[in-house]
Amino acid sequence: MEVRECVEAHAAEFAQSLCEWLAIPSVSADPARRDDVRRSARWLADYLRQTGFPVAEVWETGTSGEAAGLPAVYAHWPSGNPGAPRVLIYGHHDVQPAALSDGWDYEPFEPTERDGKIFGRGASDDKGQVLFHALGIRASLASSGAQAPPVTITMLIEGEEESGSPHFAGLLRARREQLGDLDYVVISDTTMWAADIPSICTGMRGLAEAEITLSGPSRDLHSGAFGGGVPNPVHALADLLSGLHDDDGRITLPGFYDDVVPLTDTERELIAKLPFDEGAWLHDAGDSQAAAGEQGFSTLERVWARPTAEVNGIWGGHTGPGPKTIVPKEAHAKLSFRLVADQAPDKVLRALEEYVRASTPEGITVTIKPGPGQRACRAAIDSPGVTAARAAMERAFGATVLFTKEGGSGPEADLADILGAPLVFVAVGLDADRIHAPNEYVDLSRLLRGAETAAYLWEELSSTPAATRKG
Amino acid sequence: MEVRECVEAHAAEFAQSLCEWLAIPSVSADPARRDDVRRSARWLADYLRQTGFPVAEVWETGTSGEAAGLPAVYAHWPSGNPGAPRVLIYGHHDVQPAALSDGWDYEPFEPTERDGKIFGRGASDDKGQVLFHALGIRASLASSGAQAPPVTITMLIEGEEESGSPHFAGLLRARREQLGDLDYVVISDTTMWAADIPSICTGMRGLAEAEITLSGPSRDLHSGAFGGGVPNPVHALADLLSGLHDDDGRITLPGFYDDVVPLTDTERELIAKLPFDEGAWLHDAGDSQAAAGEQGFSTLERVWARPTAEVNGIWGGHTGPGPKTIVPKEAHAKLSFRLVADQAPDKVLRALEEYVRASTPEGITVTIKPGPGQRACRAAIDSPGVTAARAAMERAFGATVLFTKEGGSGPEADLADILGAPLVFVAVGLDADRIHAPNEYVDLSRLLRGAETAAYLWEELSSTPAATRKG
Repeated sequence: MEVRECVEAHAAEFAQSLCEWLAIPSVSADPARRDDVRRSARWLADYLRQTGFPVAEVWETGTSGEAAGLPAVYAHWPSGNPGAPRVLIYGHHDVQPAALSDGWDYEPFEPTERDGKIFGRGASDDKGQVLFHALGIRASLASSGAQAPPVTITMLIEGEEESGSPHFAGLLRARREQLGDLDYVVISDTTMWAADIPSICTGMRGLAEAEITLSGPSRDLHSGAFGGGVPNPVHALADLLSGLHDDDGRITLPGFYDDVVPLTDTERELIAKLPFDEGAWLHDAGDSQAAAGEQGFSTLERVWARPTAEVNGIWGGHTGPGPKTIVPKEAHAKLSFRLVADQAPDKVLRALEEYVRASTPEGITVTIKPGPGQRACRAAIDSPGVTAARAAMERAFGATVLFTKEGGSGPEADLADILGAPLVFVAVGLDADRIHAPNEYVDLSRLLRGAETAAYLWEELSSTPAATRKG
Repeated sequence: MEVRECVEAHAAEFAQSLCEWLAIPSVSADPARRDDVRRSARWLADYLRQTGFPVAEVWETGTSGEAAGLPAVYAHWPSGNPGAPRVLIYGHHDVQPAALSDGWDYEPFEPTERDGKIFGRGASDDKGQVLFHALGIRASLASSGAQAPPVTITMLIEGEEESGSPHFAGLLRARREQLGDLDYVVISDTTMWAADIPSICTGMRGLAEAEITLSGPSRDLHSGAFGGGVPNPVHALADLLSGLHDDDGRITLPGFYDDVVPLTDTERELIAKLPFDEGAWLHDAGDSQAAAGEQGFSTLERVWARPTAEVNGIWGGHTGPGPKTIVPKEAHAKLSFRLVADQAPDKVLRALEEYVRASTPEGITVTIKPGPGQRACRAAIDSPGVTAARAAMERAFGATVLFTKEGGSGPEADLADILGAPLVFVAVGLDADRIHAPNEYVDLSRLLRGAETAAYLWEELSSTPAATRKG
């Protein structure tokens, strides 16, 4: 049986299983959903065992007590061929928060299939993209008639990706020996260019986060009695946030760009080659009325390959209805920076702290609470892994594969560094899938092409000479 | 019986009545307390009738339905002397919101007297200062043996002062004829310098308020996918708020200072003469760590006599626990300006709107919701009314009266303009009374001196030649 034939034959059963998994609200950010995240992990381990994985376990993360993390799923299936390449597949089974009241048209954890689309939180990010690997392996075996896959496959599916992967690097280090030597790390948690234009991601941005609190008086003050005579923490916050960017949209933190590896001419050419429709992109960007950002770069360069600073939230003083003429006692902002290679999150946060302290006027005190950071990562276009993935994807989609980058962040840099293996991004999500937003969905047909891609990839990789691996 | 003797003789009864009134939670800003505001008005009208006012009525304000206002209390007592000056006393019977959970040490609407202090919301602002007038009239009559006061007294006690007096100017215009010709408007809603340093306010700042909303995308966006490529409304808000002040703390709105009547040398000298302790003032200012404000002016000049712009509240994006890496769809700020003569609130808001529209980047839309405005007001130091009040206050307190200003705002400019009579500020509140804050209180002894002051004032005014009134 051909790979495609097998994939199509199991489509209905695959969709049903995915819906079963999507019904488990594995929201890692919500303390009330911790049991659901554990249930999701057990569901996946069971499913992978049924698929044929000889080993499929739930791996707890973190330490016990308050620092306890949420579990990852580990599954392992050795190839029948001695000396076959060893591949680790990374994805995650936790999901973003979702509630009907956020603007969903249906219950986000009562998944439904309609017109070839599966709707539900996690459909695209990332349960659908994890599950296509199970179908891919079945198709690979059905097509070859073998009892084991052509490469040694390890799946490591995280349970805290949507919470910044606080325990994942620790898990990788603690399990380093058990995970063994690896030749490739396949990441299935990104997007491709369009439903009919397959593409491979060649890099993701990193992340540095911090919450800033500026404190003035010990209580809100009557602005009639005191306004104009004492520093207002909201004014101080506005000043320092406003000063974070210059008129060209560049970030002003001292040394911020020092470690940025500039885009090469080739990279800029590849990006310029993409059939980018800014109007459509702005529509996807919540009907934004205009593009904006760092001068001298295109929109795609700005969101994929240039570092940014964004205020994610701000609050202080009276935010209820009606007026209240006060000088607020405090002002707060949540900030995040998207980073590119080789910026280090710690260094960026140190520069932020220095800037904030230097910008804060007399009479205002500063508290900065750093969040977990993530480094940017890259996958070389001409590496053997990416070359094999490109071939596999072109077979599955019957179309030329383009190269993209991803503006988001994840634990990929840790995977590459700690496991000592190159990254290969294989994913079929779309920016239009409304991940992290209401009405997340995925096309079933895309997941099936993902399963095909995976099956072909194991074939392609098994014929890669050992000497050229890890290129 | 001497005025002071009479006042002291009725002290206990006065305190008991005040506590009875303070127990009515007449919070005009709270829709759930509208009946309490009405109850407070009825209580006062009854009390004034018992005091001897031949007329004491509850005056409804606004129109019916949604625009209905909260009632004022009107009371009238003609002098027995034909040709006596006609005085209107202004104060208010509504109070600021208050709840135990705000940090009060006792229930704010279960007033108690302890060690000569009366604790409760409204004790100083403004029920205590309204009620001392009733005691003052009794003392005046007891001392003169007359059946009617030496001046014609009208009391007009508002029920919406703490909500920006939205219907008060309308009430004054509608009742203009009934209020009749007036020679003086006595305002009892301010503070004096210290418990042992009586002072008279010579001006209050005005107020202009607005709420600004900046809107970008139609929903919060994933900052990985879109961050750095679309304008962030919080950044735009920070830029425009930061740009509201220059490095010297001056407000940058075009034309903002055009109508400001500069402080005269005499005014600056009078302010400089006050025994101002900046350390103590900063302590009262919620233990602020430093004074700040417009360069070239002292702290008292800044809070009394210079216009200001304050952000009273700001919010946008993710304000809950933990990180959420989004480009927020909206950002909001509540702004208020304190104004000085002759700045017009409308003109300031027009300048704000122009500035905001001009500062808003492409891709961000602006909504500005103006609030009710109040003009600044002044009382001339050498006017007959202020001269009489100074003499009365020096008799009551046995100390030299100083001159101050007030940074807060109220409907005083409307009173002066619509009634066509000069203002005279007679009040015994203190900045230390914690008005608008938890644990508001007032010293009973200060209210008794206020009653004495009022009694002496009617005496002083009755001997003012008719030709020099309204000076």
